[in-house]
Amino acid sequence: MTEPTVASAPLAAIILAAGKGTRMKSDLHKVLHPLAGRPMLMHLLDSLSDAGVARQVVVVGASGEQVEAAVADRGVAIAWQQEQLGTAHAALQARDALADFDGIAIVCFGDTPLLAAETVARLAARLQAEDAPAVAVLGFRPADPAAYGRVIAAADGTMERIVEYKDAAPEERAVTLCNSGVTAVRTSDLWRLLSAVGNANATGEYYLPDVVGLAIAEGRRAVVIETGADEVAGINSRAELAGVEAAWQAARRLRAMAEGATLIAPETVWFAHDTVIGRDVTIEPNVVFGPGVRVADGATIHGFSHIEGAEVGPHAEVGPYARLRPGAVLRAQSKVGNFVEIKKAVLGEGAKANHLTYLGDAEIGAGSNIGAGTITCNYDGYSKYRTVIGAGAFIGSNSALVAPVTIGDGAIVGAGSVVTSDVEADALALVRAERQTKPGWAARFRERAKALKARKAAR
Amino acid sequence: MTEPTVASAPLAAIILAAGKGTRMKSDLHKVLHPLAGRPMLMHLLDSLSDAGVARQVVVVGASGEQVEAAVADRGVAIAWQQEQLGTAHAALQARDALADFDGIAIVCFGDTPLLAAETVARLAARLQAEDAPAVAVLGFRPADPAAYGRVIAAADGTMERIVEYKDAAPEERAVTLCNSGVTAVRTSDLWRLLSAVGNANATGEYYLPDVVGLAIAEGRRAVVIETGADEVAGINSRAELAGVEAAWQAARRLRAMAEGATLIAPETVWFAHDTVIGRDVTIEPNVVFGPGVRVADGATIHGFSHIEGAEVGPHAEVGPYARLRPGAVLRAQSKVGNFVEIKKAVLGEGAKANHLTYLGDAEIGAGSNIGAGTITCNYDGYSKYRTVIGAGAFIGSNSALVAPVTIGDGAIVGAGSVVTSDVEADALALVRAERQTKPGWAARFRERAKALKARKAAR
Amino acid sequence: MTEPTVASAPLAAIILAAGKGTRMKSDLHKVLHPLAGRPMLMHLLDSLSDAGVARQVVVVGASGEQVEAAVADRGVAIAWQQEQLGTAHAALQARDALADFDGIAIVCFGDTPLLAAETVARLAARLQAEDAPAVAVLGFRPADPAAYGRVIAAADGTMERIVEYKDAAPEERAVTLCNSGVTAVRTSDLWRLLSAVGNANATGEYYLPDVVGLAIAEGRRAVVIETGADEVAGINSRAELAGVEAAWQAARRLRAMAEGATLIAPETVWFAHDTVIGRDVTIEPNVVFGPGVRVADGATIHGFSHIEGAEVGPHAEVGPYARLRPGAVLRAQSKVGNFVEIKKAVLGEGAKANHLTYLGDAEIGAGSNIGAGTITCNYDGYSKYRTVIGAGAFIGSNSALVAPVTIGDGAIVGAGSVVTSDVEADALALVRAERQTKPGWAARFRERAKALKARKAAR
Repeated sequence: MTEPTVASAPLAAIILAAGKGTRMKSDLHKVLHPLAGRPMLMHLLDSLSDAGVARQVVVVGASGEQVEAAVADRGVAIAWQQEQLGTAHAALQARDALADFDGIAIVCFGDTPLLAAETVARLAARLQAEDAPAVAVLGFRPADPAAYGRVIAAADGTMERIVEYKDAAPEERAVTLCNSGVTAVRTSDLWRLLSAVGNANATGEYYLPDVVGLAIAEGRRAVVIETGADEVAGINSRAELAGVEAAWQAARRLRAMAEGATLIAPETVWFAHDTVIGRDVTIEPNVVFGPGVRVADGATIHGFSHIEGAEVGPHAEVGPYARLRPGAVLRAQSKVGNFVEIKKAVLGEGAKANHLTYLGDAEIGAGSNIGAGTITCNYDGYSKYRTVIGAGAFIGSNSALVAPVTIGDGAIVGAGSVVTSDVEADALALVRAERQTKPGWAARFRERAKALKARKAAR
Repeated sequence: MTEPTVASAPLAAIILAAGKGTRMKSDLHKVLHPLAGRPMLMHLLDSLSDAGVARQVVVVGASGEQVEAAVADRGVAIAWQQEQLGTAHAALQARDALADFDGIAIVCFGDTPLLAAETVARLAARLQAEDAPAVAVLGFRPADPAAYGRVIAAADGTMERIVEYKDAAPEERAVTLCNSGVTAVRTSDLWRLLSAVGNANATGEYYLPDVVGLAIAEGRRAVVIETGADEVAGINSRAELAGVEAAWQAARRLRAMAEGATLIAPETVWFAHDTVIGRDVTIEPNVVFGPGVRVADGATIHGFSHIEGAEVGPHAEVGPYARLRPGAVLRAQSKVGNFVEIKKAVLGEGAKANHLTYLGDAEIGAGSNIGAGTITCNYDGYSKYRTVIGAGAFIGSNSALVAPVTIGDGAIVGAGSVVTSDVEADALALVRAERQTKPGWAARFRERAKALKARKAAR
Repeated sequence: MTEPTVASAPLAAIILAAGKGTRMKSDLHKVLHPLAGRPMLMHLLDSLSDAGVARQVVVVGASGEQVEAAVADRGVAIAWQQEQLGTAHAALQARDALADFDGIAIVCFGDTPLLAAETVARLAARLQAEDAPAVAVLGFRPADPAAYGRVIAAADGTMERIVEYKDAAPEERAVTLCNSGVTAVRTSDLWRLLSAVGNANATGEYYLPDVVGLAIAEGRRAVVIETGADEVAGINSRAELAGVEAAWQAARRLRAMAEGATLIAPETVWFAHDTVIGRDVTIEPNVVFGPGVRVADGATIHGFSHIEGAEVGPHAEVGPYARLRPGAVLRAQSKVGNFVEIKKAVLGEGAKANHLTYLGDAEIGAGSNIGAGTITCNYDGYSKYRTVIGAGAFIGSNSALVAPVTIGDGAIVGAGSVVTSDVEADALALVRAERQTKPGWAARFRERAKALKARKAAR
């Protein structure tokens, strides 16, 4: 990420999130729908923080309590807009929360998670130049500008006006620069301008862009700065959410490759917001990263792997079909193979769990080999218990290790054993009944079974 | 789906499916290749039925017995075209099957599965207006019109003629409206017109579009109505089949999202023709739905899941790597985790089978916990048997339940047990041998094994 | 593949691979990064061999020892360029290796793996016509020609000059034919021309394209022949590698479909360089083929399968979630189901391993049924051993077969058994302890466990 320019005046943000999000058809508040494994609102709040915006007020309406709960530990203020009377009215609801604040306020939207920190900083900086205008608006050039208000401005960004499409003259409609709605105003101007906005229009709503005209009418200057259309794309439906997710993922994949990872089929790898991928990492087709993953240099992630909250050490090998859950830690050169699930477990350096295994709440020593079909029985229906396996141990296939249990260094557990108490270092533990053999039994069984099946079929 | 306009005259369809489909390079008849998990012909027959087409005749040639078998239970007539003498000749083969029918016949093609019911209804309706023409043809505007016959028509759809590209004058070639071949004619005209079609042309075939010219020559009127190019895309190769599948899936994904499901990576989710997805369902990347699946509101389908013939209850959680086969029923809040296969089995409310498990021909009570590595042994090589597990039971890891067997409510099965007879409610059942421990054995084994390996390597 | 035209003069290739590949950010030499499961250099060397190029010299620099090792068994010579002084200088380093060679040399680039054999042959053939020029260069028309040198040539391909973009006049910049760098020259001319190249330019490097001007200055003729831009796309970053991989895969998928395989979602199937797919094979979404796979006619590969070094017989069924590793051989009509791994194992005709199984170093007879959760214990931590199962055997679920071990024809192994010695034909083998039942124990356990959990929570 580019180092954001941090503005020197105090910055606040008023994040509008009171819309109903009806088109999402969801019980979950629109701005809490996840992008890259994280509520979209959090992406925006992080960008604002990165841009030096210390004070953040989220304006909520219906289902606002969901948002309130989600940001509870972020030091973000909540303002309620009880009636949906328009964006200017919504922004005005933040006034109390910012009563003690004097600086630059940036009004933005909870459903535009891709707004970049440097863009926010650039917008704020525009209000701090010597010839600072009263209002700075973020403009963009959408592929299809039909629905957007046009920004009528001089080459230096000085705005003449913002005009809605339906009110625009033909030559104004030809303008491709549109208003994103993101607006920066000093609080010394903001509340006055917002209060002056009227609702004498077709829908009877108070519109935020009207502050531009009001400022100009006061003899002040308003400017536009431009950014990319992707960055201010609002999300109003699940299809638009998927579109923004796709854009985010595409950019993230390019970054991973630029940093030295091979993605054989980049379009089939999904990253989370915080995935960390090292150099000379190879990622095969079809890998999903949930939040909280770090992959060290030289590791290989085979196809069909699902990795979340896990640490993959240098030159470790994962999958195919490996499922790493939170707390999985794979030390250097360790290996997790197919149909293996690891949860809150450390696999020591060079240790292997190659097939059909569940390791939960466990610690596996360096160089140990966990046989196919091994299960750590970590749960009794009520509590979870730990399994500790030493270094250089060998757990035979189809064994069940009933936790709490410790297997010593270099110990061997015989195939098919259920181990309920500790095994000392270098010992062999074996839980196995005598074999019974019944010669010819299988042949007789087949005859009976075939006859039974024939009788059933005849009925 | 839009409510189709049902025409009031009786409707019949003549579905041409006598082509060899050579480019498919397949032993399977072209029209039986599946689209969205269902033979492409069935998509078309359903659309026709939805449009109110009660009588359906499929005209077949080579491998026609495959088609006959496939539609055996649909009340569809089969007509045979013994020689491939052209589309007019093919349509004429339906005459006997429709001998008792008086109404509107729609001639269409077995390899255009996306033809919509409303389009069929619209075409049929055109023959029932007061000024009804003798022939109505379905036109479309392909991206690349090169290979298609051009429809020369007035603005109101009245056709002057259909002209093959090779016979077309430059100004006719510039026309973008092409003939899809789908044609509606009253049976009182159809057989006469078809019989009048000649084969005095380069290939010596009887062409269906010639009925247009013949009708006009009789002083009758022929009209064109237009539809989207996607809808009449014919499938002649596996690549074209994949293209139509992709178009179908893209539309279906948009519908799922519009109805309130989150598809994190829509392009990686494959639906079947009859998949039902509720509201606030989240579907992670890489999920395949086979036919017969219903997913209730609030359910989560994690990545890499493969689901067919299954019912997923409200707020149930599936996968990653869950394989639900026909007859799997997951009640509300139940959970099927990774590397778990469910077949003809009911998982009760809140019950869990989280890891490495096979449940087949089984019933699991509410709130039960099925440990990792549990297998229902439902098959003895000849017959299948049922496993019944009560409510609140706990099956220890790596257990094998040999059906027929019943585990009572609240019972516990110890890890690694093979249960061959019933376990009463609230009991503990344990099948486990004594443990043998051999101190130091593992250390000695290692020395021997290393020495053996060294000797082998030295040879 | 089109049959390459093999030229009659002896052919040599000088493959330049001395570039640092800095943008790959890798410890692996750029030309060794795999495309379709094979180092990109090998694709090029194979194309050259297919075109009849018997002598091949790879010119390497930094990390050249990696390349040397990779081509060790191919009879390819290595020449070292100690300093990176430009492409002409690099090509000249091949002089010693070709000291005894008299014929046509083709200078090409190790990072253009898609260069086709027939293009190489076409280029070489150009130097063997009656009016043969001294130099033949491969030209192409890139989508964005900005960075490339322009080829100024007559309609018959006779070149006037190659001009770098920065030196080009406006009318030269408008030329879209660019120089790929691939150059054919007779060795009787090559070394002299290369030695004459100077470095009096901005970067002080010796440029290969200068041989064109030098030949013309000698009164000789130089010609350009044209090929597609895809074919000469150089790979300089992992993103470009992914782009070439995508192009390769797209072409390969089309070929599979044209040859009679159904790919439901072609864009989700990844082939390796040598994958062989039969007719009427169906491949569901999300299948990854590693190197060395043959799939016979009529086989079905279900979704989420990962197949490498394996043979899939006629009408066999694989997956979903099947992992076939090198040495897996599935005979006709056999079936490998979900969460099953097969390695160096033969599954006989009609045999089944349907669920949660690991078969390694094994041979399974025709018609045998391997129960869910079966594991062949083929490894003791030091050596691998074989399991042999006869025809018509039945292995009960959750069994462990400790190799070396043989299960006879028609034998049955009881569920949950650990089999450590041979089972004779038609016998039943059972390793199972007595069951213990403790009525009411589970109910008492629950009370204690709940109380314990409550106490823990209260702390």
